[in-house]
This record gives sequence, C-alpha cells and structure tokens, in this order.
Amino acid sequence: MKAVRWYKARDIRVENIVEPTIASGKVKIKVHWAGICGSDLHRYTVGPIFIPVKQLHHDRSDTYPLVMGHEFSGEVVEVGAGVTKVKIGDAVVIEPTLACGECAACRKGKYNICKHLGFHGLSGGGGGFSQYTMVDERMVHKMPEGLSYEQGALVEPAAVALHAVRQSKLKVGDKAAVFGTGPIGLLVIDALRASGASEIYAVELSAERAAKAMELGATAVINPKEEDAVTRIHALTDGGVDVAFEVTGAPDVLQQAIDSTTFEGETIIVSIWESVASIQPNIIVRSERTVKGVMAYRDVFPSVMELMTKGYFLADKLVTKRIGLDDIVTEGFEALLKEKNHIKILVNAQG
Amino acid sequence: MKAVRWYKARDIRVENIVEPTIASGKVKIKVHWAGICGSDLHRYTVGPIFIPVKQLHHDRSDTYPLVMGHEFSGEVVEVGAGVTKVKIGDAVVIEPTLACGECAACRKGKYNICKHLGFHGLSGGGGGFSQYTMVDERMVHKMPEGLSYEQGALVEPAAVALHAVRQSKLKVGDKAAVFGTGPIGLLVIDALRASGASEIYAVELSAERAAKAMELGATAVINPKEEDAVTRIHALTDGGVDVAFEVTGAPDVLQQAIDSTTFEGETIIVSIWESVASIQPNIIVRSERTVKGVMAYRDVFPSVMELMTKGYFLADKLVTKRIGLDDIVTEGFEALLKEKNHIKILVNAQG
Repeated sequence: MKAVRWYKARDIRVENIVEPTIASGKVKIKVHWAGICGSDLHRYTVGPIFIPVKQLHHDRSDTYPLVMGHEFSGEVVEVGAGVTKVKIGDAVVIEPTLACGECAACRKGKYNICKHLGFHGLSGGGGGFSQYTMVDERMVHKMPEGLSYEQGALVEPAAVALHAVRQSKLKVGDKAAVFGTGPIGLLVIDALRASGASEIYAVELSAERAAKAMELGATAVINPKEEDAVTRIHALTDGGVDVAFEVTGAPDVLQQAIDSTTFEGETIIVSIWESVASIQPNIIVRSERTVKGVMAYRDVFPSVMELMTKGYFLADKLVTKRIGLDDIVTEGFEALLKEKNHIKILVNAQG
Repeated sequence: MKAVRWYKARDIRVENIVEPTIASGKVKIKVHWAGICGSDLHRYTVGPIFIPVKQLHHDRSDTYPLVMGHEFSGEVVEVGAGVTKVKIGDAVVIEPTLACGECAACRKGKYNICKHLGFHGLSGGGGGFSQYTMVDERMVHKMPEGLSYEQGALVEPAAVALHAVRQSKLKVGDKAAVFGTGPIGLLVIDALRASGASEIYAVELSAERAAKAMELGATAVINPKEEDAVTRIHALTDGGVDVAFEVTGAPDVLQQAIDSTTFEGETIIVSIWESVASIQPNIIVRSERTVKGVMAYRDVFPSVMELMTKGYFLADKLVTKRIGLDDIVTEGFEALLKEKNHIKILVNAQG
C-alpha cells in the first residue's frame, strides 16, 4: 500500500509498504481523508516538535522512517478478535492518542497528559497518510449519520479547540480573545461561538485569516501591526476579556494575552512551544490572573462530532485544498509554506 | 505625637507630627504593636515596591514624607459620627487596604485587586509606626477575647498567607511546596497546616529559616544549594506536589515552583516582583498545569484571628525582636539587613 514516511527534515517520501495485518483488539481502517497539521509541517521543515526523534512511544516496536498523519477518517475494513465497538463498513474517526494506561495521570483518566504520551501518526505504529492503517479499538469513534469523511478529518483539530475552551473558565456570556488564527485558533473561535461567548476578539496579522476569523464569528479582528492589541481589547471590552487563548507559540504574545484579560482573567496556552517566554509576574499577581496550559484533548471526540452536525467546525469553511497522497510534499507541505492563504489541506489517502 | 516618616531611600526619620483629629465615619487608634514588613524594608533600602513614589492613593490629599507601618493593632480612643462597628476601648486590628469602591473589581467585592489599590501606611494618610493614626470604620476589626496586641500585629501578614492558600486549589490531604520561607512563606506553611495539607515541603537556603519551617510544621526542608529542589520534591511525593507557592520573587524560582508540581498542578505566585521571569510554557502545557497570582487579602481578617485563637500564626514562634519607635532604623531596618536570623520584628508604638 502507499504511505507517506518521514525520514528526516525535508525528506518525506511516498512509498509502498506492507499493509498491516489484523490482530486481536485492533481495527483496520481504509483511510479516506487526512489533514495536514501544523506539527506535521514543523516535522517536515525542522523535525519532530514534541515527539523526540529517538523516543517513539514507549510500548511501540516501530522504528523510523515512520508513517505520518494523525487527523483522519476512514472506513473499517477488518476487526480483530474481541472488537465490539465497530464493525466492517462503519465510518470512523480516529482519536490518535497513545497513552500508557499506567502512569498517575492515566490512572485518573487524564490520558492526554500521560507521562508517555504519543500519537498514532507522530510516534510510530502507522498513520493516516497511508491507504490503510490499524489502531486499537478504543481509538475509533463511529461517525454519526450525515457526517462526511472530509468532515471527519477535522474532528481531531476541532477536539484540540473544544478541549481548550472546555478547560477554560469561560461561561456563556463571557468575553474572549484569541491570539493567532491559524487552523487551531480559527477552531477555537468556533468552539467559543458554540460556548456562547458574547464577544470574541481575534488578533491576527494575515488579512486572509482575519477575514476567515470574521466569517467564523469573531466580533472583531485586531491587526497588531496596526494598533496595540492589548489597548484595543481593553477599550472594546471596557477592561479586558474573561479568557484569552494563546495560539501562536510566539514568546512575546504570551504576555499580550495575559495583559488582554480583565481582573481574575484566565489565559489558556494552547500552543506547543519551542522556546521559553518572558512574563511579568506582577501582572498576574496584581489582578489575580491565571495562566493555564491545555494539551491535546480527552473525552471530546463524540461531542465534537455532535457539534459538527449542528453546524460547527465545518469543512466547507476550513478546507482550502484537497490533494492526493502522491502530491503531499509539493501540493501539501510546500504549498503550506508558500501559499499563506491556506487553512486546512486535506489529503485523499485513496486518491 | 511620634511617627516614623519616609523621606526617601535610606532616609527614614522619627519625628513629631500633629495627631489626627477625629472625623465622621473614622476611628482613631492608639497603636500598640506594628510589624516591619518586607515591603517596608524594601522601601527603606530602595524605595516603594508597589506604590510608586508619585502615585499616592487616588483619593488621598496626603503628600510625602509619609507615615509608614501597615501591620498593626491598637486601641480605639475616639470614634467619629456614625461609627457603630467599634467603641472607645476596643482592641482592634487594622485592615490597611484602601480601595476606590468604584472600579469593576471593587463593584464585585474584590477590593484587594482594586484598580487604585493602596494601603494605609504605604500610600499616605497615616500608618502604624505612629503613636496614633486614624482609619475608616470599615478598616477596623475587633479582636476576639484572649488575643494579645502583639498577636494582632501579625494578622495582616497572616492574612496574606491565608488568602494565598484559600485562593489555591488545595484540598485537605493534598501535598504542597513553599519556595522561600521568609515571614510570608512561614505563614503560608502555617496556613497549609491549618488547611490539612498532608505534606508540606519548604525550599530554603537559610538554616535558621529551615529550622523555623520545621517548627511550624514543614514535612521536610530542602536546601537548593545542596540538592536539586525539583528532583527532590518529585522523589518525596512520587511525582510532584498538588500546589506550589512561590514566595521568593526570584525569577529562577518561578520555573522551579512550576516544575515541582504534578500534572494539573497549580503554582500560586505570592511574591511581588521587580523583574520579569522566564518560563517554559511547554511545562505548563504538557501537564495542564496552572499558574495563578494572588494579591494581599480580602474578607479574611476575622478568620485569621479565629485561627490565631486555635494556635496558628503564633507571635511566640514568629516574633524575633521587639523594639521601640525611636529605634526603628537602627534596631529595625538595619537589624533586618544585618542579622539574618530575624523573622518578624515588632515595634511598640508607645515604647
């Protein structure tokens, strides 16, 4: 079968590899659509962002080169002994989290902050940029009627956004700011809309993304090159937002996000970071603010799919290009680097 | 009357000034004991730490030089028209917070994070290093039977500690770490003991303070010059504490406090800061940790006094020296700079 394998930075190859053979407790998937994630792009340009090259998931025997792709939907083509959750022909979305099940976080059900956290498609064992892949039964979620496979490929990134908002203190009627409106930031805006936020301010440099943020329900978009985002947000909200979401990973922006909140305001860090950030602790102290990190998602895939059936996180608004597996480097990774108007590029694993 | 007035850094004078004249809604206090706070010491050596020199409290007409002292107890000697909360002869503790009553935080009762926050004894209008002072009726709290005036002078710093623990997520049985065991850190340990923390780890360089931390109920004290505090705390707690309290204001320590917590752990910033601090956002993100600031206190003075009657925050354990007003510079400020064994020095305002 065809699969996209990562060898090293700037060396990703579409190759023919052996199809997985069904095993007990496993589900074999014929992949339909798989999305290219920011972390995939980072792996393409620089290398793995949060799965070190030499540290594949602890119970995996897989080695490099590894199959990429962790945002995907597909069809069940085979089930191993003991599998009851799905049957052949079911349309499913894959929750790619690999957790050890044994650490203190796992024992409390917090599998997204497992000490040995990995992801199918990032840590070995197969991935969604592949005609077929095989996962544990617990990783498949049956899609509700009426949800397309394309839509299914957006469940994973939408789950990041929904988890971020669910972990925040935001209540219906509250005001929020979103710093950075790449794919996750845009999905956070949609999750905030679903949560009944009364005002949603986006901070974004790109005109294309600003327009998309407005289309998705932002109250206003502030261009930080044109005006001071913090001052503007305080003026628009009469004193700051209740919750700010940091979705850039840029060191300077973290303090801006904190500054944009009102007293007792909360800043949710959604980004994965490559560097340290400098903050002014007094700004946190003087107004009893909070900074909280959120990681991936847990227990939200079914809710995300329900919200999709109600009109949130729609592929029609977020997918800017559809390509085949063979073209993933030139039309996928390279396009994302060169064409700044893209939000989500979906890969047809059978195309 | 005698009063201690701040002119500029290293220029504090004991002078004769005019006694306050009673006014409507005000309470005149004959000060008994007043504690020297770290912020007083900072003002002595460098200047005001969080009340800028030129920005006295917004509704005060007072000017420099200003009377210092904000941790104090005394006796009511006169009450203005309309005062019903206390009568002449009552033993009281003063809650020195000056809040505008009009900003968004004040309107929600969060007077400790008032936009125009000030303190009696830091922002003008009189202070506790004075034979007499006068405050608003709302600022006096009648002391319960059996509490000494010396004990009363410790209510204010103990309130900082109790507020910090009350604002944290700590529940009875949880594990905690306290980074820095100056007076506030030690009081945090006592507040943690009162809160039923199962294990309390202190991180402290000074041997004297380490011994005092143990006396106040720390489970163990770690000397960060001798071993890595984070590693040690993780080993002692099998994975980190639930809540860490940062009470040093040292930029490097904030990250250590964050690192010392377990997954979903909380770091409470109690210190007032003079600089920025560098943090690793990924450490917050990957384990969904939280960093939260706390400021001064609100609504806790009566609880602090109740806890004092039950054996917490005891002057016997915390007061290391008692001096008279006249000696405040040599025996107070200079002693705190030279003699590192001090915890709290109390000033007898009538002595």
